[in-house]
Amino acid sequence: MWTFDNPPLKALREKYAFTPTQAWLDHLRLASVRINDGGSGAFVSSEGLVLTNSHIATGQLQKVSSEKKDYQKDGFTARSRSQEIPCPDMEINVLVSMEDVTRRVLASIKQGMSTEQALSARQAEVGKIEKESLDTTGLRSEMVTLYQGGEYWLYRYKNYTDIRLVFAPESSISFFGGDEDNFTYPRHDLDMALLRVYENGKPLNSRDYLKWNSSGAKDGELVFVSGNPGSTGRLKTLAQLETERDFLEPMLLHSLQRLEAALGEYASRGPEEARQAGTSLLEMQNAIKALGGMLQGLRSEATMEQKLKSEEEFKARVAANPDWQRAYGSAWNDIARAEKKTRKMFKLTFNRRLVGGSLPDRAIDLVRYVTETQKPDAERLEEFHEAGLESVRYQILSPAPVYPKLEETLLAASLAESLQALGPGDPWISAALAGKSPAQRAHELISGTKLGDVAFRKSLMEGGAAVVQASNDPLIVLARTVDPIDRATRKQREDQIESIEVKAGEQIGQARFAAYGKSVYPDATFTPRLSYGTVRSYPTNGTQAQPFTTLYGLYDRAFAFNFKPPYDLPGEYIQRKSALDLSTRLNFISSTDVVGGNSGSPVVNRAGELVGLIFDGNIESLLGDFLYDEATNRSIAVHPAAMIHLLRKVYDAAPLADELEGKTAVSVKR
Amino acid sequence: MWTFDNPPLKALREKYAFTPTQAWLDHLRLASVRINDGGSGAFVSSEGLVLTNSHIATGQLQKVSSEKKDYQKDGFTARSRSQEIPCPDMEINVLVSMEDVTRRVLASIKQGMSTEQALSARQAEVGKIEKESLDTTGLRSEMVTLYQGGEYWLYRYKNYTDIRLVFAPESSISFFGGDEDNFTYPRHDLDMALLRVYENGKPLNSRDYLKWNSSGAKDGELVFVSGNPGSTGRLKTLAQLETERDFLEPMLLHSLQRLEAALGEYASRGPEEARQAGTSLLEMQNAIKALGGMLQGLRSEATMEQKLKSEEEFKARVAANPDWQRAYGSAWNDIARAEKKTRKMFKLTFNRRLVGGSLPDRAIDLVRYVTETQKPDAERLEEFHEAGLESVRYQILSPAPVYPKLEETLLAASLAESLQALGPGDPWISAALAGKSPAQRAHELISGTKLGDVAFRKSLMEGGAAVVQASNDPLIVLARTVDPIDRATRKQREDQIESIEVKAGEQIGQARFAAYGKSVYPDATFTPRLSYGTVRSYPTNGTQAQPFTTLYGLYDRAFAFNFKPPYDLPGEYIQRKSALDLSTRLNFISSTDVVGGNSGSPVVNRAGELVGLIFDGNIESLLGDFLYDEATNRSIAVHPAAMIHLLRKVYDAAPLADELEGKTAVSVKR
Repeated sequence: MWTFDNPPLKALREKYAFTPTQAWLDHLRLASVRINDGGSGAFVSSEGLVLTNSHIATGQLQKVSSEKKDYQKDGFTARSRSQEIPCPDMEINVLVSMEDVTRRVLASIKQGMSTEQALSARQAEVGKIEKESLDTTGLRSEMVTLYQGGEYWLYRYKNYTDIRLVFAPESSISFFGGDEDNFTYPRHDLDMALLRVYENGKPLNSRDYLKWNSSGAKDGELVFVSGNPGSTGRLKTLAQLETERDFLEPMLLHSLQRLEAALGEYASRGPEEARQAGTSLLEMQNAIKALGGMLQGLRSEATMEQKLKSEEEFKARVAANPDWQRAYGSAWNDIARAEKKTRKMFKLTFNRRLVGGSLPDRAIDLVRYVTETQKPDAERLEEFHEAGLESVRYQILSPAPVYPKLEETLLAASLAESLQALGPGDPWISAALAGKSPAQRAHELISGTKLGDVAFRKSLMEGGAAVVQASNDPLIVLARTVDPIDRATRKQREDQIESIEVKAGEQIGQARFAAYGKSVYPDATFTPRLSYGTVRSYPTNGTQAQPFTTLYGLYDRAFAFNFKPPYDLPGEYIQRKSALDLSTRLNFISSTDVVGGNSGSPVVNRAGELVGLIFDGNIESLLGDFLYDEATNRSIAVHPAAMIHLLRKVYDAAPLADELEGKTAVSVKR
Repeated sequence: MWTFDNPPLKALREKYAFTPTQAWLDHLRLASVRINDGGSGAFVSSEGLVLTNSHIATGQLQKVSSEKKDYQKDGFTARSRSQEIPCPDMEINVLVSMEDVTRRVLASIKQGMSTEQALSARQAEVGKIEKESLDTTGLRSEMVTLYQGGEYWLYRYKNYTDIRLVFAPESSISFFGGDEDNFTYPRHDLDMALLRVYENGKPLNSRDYLKWNSSGAKDGELVFVSGNPGSTGRLKTLAQLETERDFLEPMLLHSLQRLEAALGEYASRGPEEARQAGTSLLEMQNAIKALGGMLQGLRSEATMEQKLKSEEEFKARVAANPDWQRAYGSAWNDIARAEKKTRKMFKLTFNRRLVGGSLPDRAIDLVRYVTETQKPDAERLEEFHEAGLESVRYQILSPAPVYPKLEETLLAASLAESLQALGPGDPWISAALAGKSPAQRAHELISGTKLGDVAFRKSLMEGGAAVVQASNDPLIVLARTVDPIDRATRKQREDQIESIEVKAGEQIGQARFAAYGKSVYPDATFTPRLSYGTVRSYPTNGTQAQPFTTLYGLYDRAFAFNFKPPYDLPGEYIQRKSALDLSTRLNFISSTDVVGGNSGSPVVNRAGELVGLIFDGNIESLLGDFLYDEATNRSIAVHPAAMIHLLRKVYDAAPLADELEGKTAVSVKR
């Protein structure tokens, strides 16, 4: 997961006799995209076509669906440009430039400042840098903290919001095997979607796009993944990992399981309810399985021993140099002390929150937006810095449909959970519940709010603080009531934990550079990274995993389970089977290091051609947030051969296949 | 693994509302066969046709092959009865009757006898009972020790030796995936062979045969396996298991790995050498993988804790009853003390042995045969009791080909291993090596012996003690030299260990009946047993195993590995692919409890129809020798649909398929 400013040139040269040029790297970075729905993608034609996963587009598919037409389940193929469906609130970012601003950020901290003062100064400087960059370039400018604070980088993105849906397959083939096969291999999923980026009402002229290679990569071939891994904690200290293992992750898992139960109950009420809850339910099940696997890994003695060993070695290196020891030596203990406070506070910080489909979030966002935008940029909560406001406004005004009964179900479940965790005496709980039961309160809030109406949200946002203060919309009233408590909790966390850990993190980051140089990559931050590896089997289940799966394997598993869901197939896959070449490769594995957020990442070969589409990792990769084991950790990708073959033979989408393969001048009806 | 005298009627009634009649049980037992090459099988037509695994017939396939024609690799299909190939030394047994002789055996032990005297008395009584039975019935009569001596049963078998090879597929499809996929699932093997039993030169009129059901069993359906599980140690004490884990199994594994290396070197000399060594090499790799998996299981804390817990509970039950405690209470400690001696002696007992292809065994057998048959039956070494002599003579006179260079390679490797373990000062080693290096000595012995000649072996066997004593054949001379040492080692083992453990085993067996009744089945003894379970998935690799595999899966895996061995397929499978219905079920799993020896066992449904052919277990089943876990332990079987479909469509063997399906009056050319 290397940053594009520090590609692993030495390893590539030594292991594979390959040296990517700067042009190769720039082209790949500019052809790669970040999708705000939590994934990655790539331009695959000169006319703005973006390839990503169906499961990354699924939120938008759900938002453009209705009781009459379920695109999430039934898929969608645009037969012409005019049929392409606008996505209500998707954003796509392309990383245009990167600047190392570590010195400037660190210079904001003056001698004699307390850790709390230092944190404020650092945050203010970050806001200032971002604002300057936005003003100068007009680009979305975001500070990225690498190596736990060892480096600060300013990343500038071009942001696109006119995104249209071009193609997505049926959910039974994009997610064949469902939750059971999720995070496992061998796998048989056509987890792809095609989007088109528009600018000024026309398809984007995407100069940097990946050439398509339908042959894919051979077994053993060097491949790269360019994408946005979401978050890892591999450089965390042992104390931090133990907090994750014993407190944070188990609580999160428990909460997800409660929400999944509530969603499941809602979905069981009828087909339309099932459709409304479908996407969230899938995401929940995905998260539960991932978290379960990760926790199992964290709880294995071997994992913690390995972590302990590497930390001991690192500390010994630092201790061996008196200068380093003086500058960085206290950091581990500082973090361990802060972690004790994390463990005390985690119930509070986790449970003082309102969860719904989207309405409670909108209420909180509106109350804070009008307050924060009155302040100078440097003094705002960091998510309201000027440089990110465009996106905040875009999300507040999302035209995506709202399902009040679903919102109510989720909010009731969430309030019940918070009540159970914090007890009725907690001030946040009394403010949130106002003496009602969670179910009563959720009903009263959701049935009473007008926040489902975009125009109403717009009037509040543009009306500013006075209008929001005067509003008697029950969700806005609630948000106004809990906001001061939330801010106090946040301040307490910043003062007692974050300020200490940010400083200690910087020390450890600098110690790492001193002791090891930049021979490791920073933890993932949902920013563009480059990973490399080879198409490669691994030992599993007593034998060797097959490097590829084929369409034969898809039908084998479907027939073996007698087409019982989640092993059913769309009707066309039965009717058109004889027209298919079943030896077509469907999925494949490689030793590229990916985690959540990489979904939709392109896999490319030495020539920079697209040879795959990342969509998952094997069960052994679930510990990847904390450890990467090259022997067994594998990413799973859709093979380009299957994408093209099925577009042509099952979906009658030859124009799209041609556009991908660059076969013809694109000419479509408008 | 229930004995046929004690089927699990209560469990079947309560769980499945099924009560097999005595006729149902008798028919299944009489249709089932034991194959002396270490497996099981079943009659599947009224004309003596026996279905078993290709890997059980592989030894005979190899023995009827030559440099010109490799049936093991290329398979064989008899197009008429006259083409059926006689197997050189296969024996097939059918269990005709069973008699409980526990009282009579135990009555042979008189008060005041030492454990050594008791062992001799018991052995003498066993020989006497077997001999009487043989004289009365003419049937092969074998004593079977059940429940570690809790019961003694006399089993009488009809023995068949005129067995002819009818059909076996190519090794690349019978063992698709080779050692890698061995003991794993999903699986794609046509591991079947058809043999025909002849009597008096004519196909046996096999009245009891299993009706064929090409539909097989449904997911979740109750099924039975009737076969001969080889050996388990589930009722062994913890002390015995620890010896297995820490001493016996690791040494065996190490020895197998050395022999595998020697065989591999031999096979690499050329294609003919590869053919000669092929079968042994496969068996060796199979044993190594099985042993490795089993050791891994034994070494897991969970296994030993489970074992400890059940033993503690058993001992507590015994201790709670003063009569039981007095009669049986000392047994566990007695065994633990004996096991200490086992651990001291194991190097000696294991390494004082001559290993070759077959010649060293023949030499030892001949020397002992002529000695033992001079004695009264009751005084002989147990393997030379009159009741088993027919088989001893049959094996000594086997016309199977002998490959001197292969014999030499194996003997040299074995001598080298024994030398390393025991050192040059050991009396057995000095006798065996006679001052030469292992390689020199093996060369001298094998190149000098005439034991490869059946007529020469016959002359020695029939010539008796005088002729054998006078022989200067170097292998016979060697066998004469080491025999007294072997006998002394054996006597020492019997006196110090076996006599104590046999007695203690009887006590524990009786204690088990007292405490638990006959609610558990005895450890496996390569005798007929009945196992039940359902066709059933299990959790594996993060998902659910598919209950069936299909021909689609076979092609998926072959294409995925680009037909690289062991994932290659016979040419006909490519050429005739379009004629196949790829949704045909190929293999399936069930929760029936099987271990080595069950290979070739029929799977039958409630109607007693054949619905499968056991050929393996999953990786989780490798601990099955010591523990059975219903949640994950699965047997793997060939599906009858694939056997019929492939016989018809790939092998053009419609007459055989018809005979199996009982479709037509059998009419074949003679």
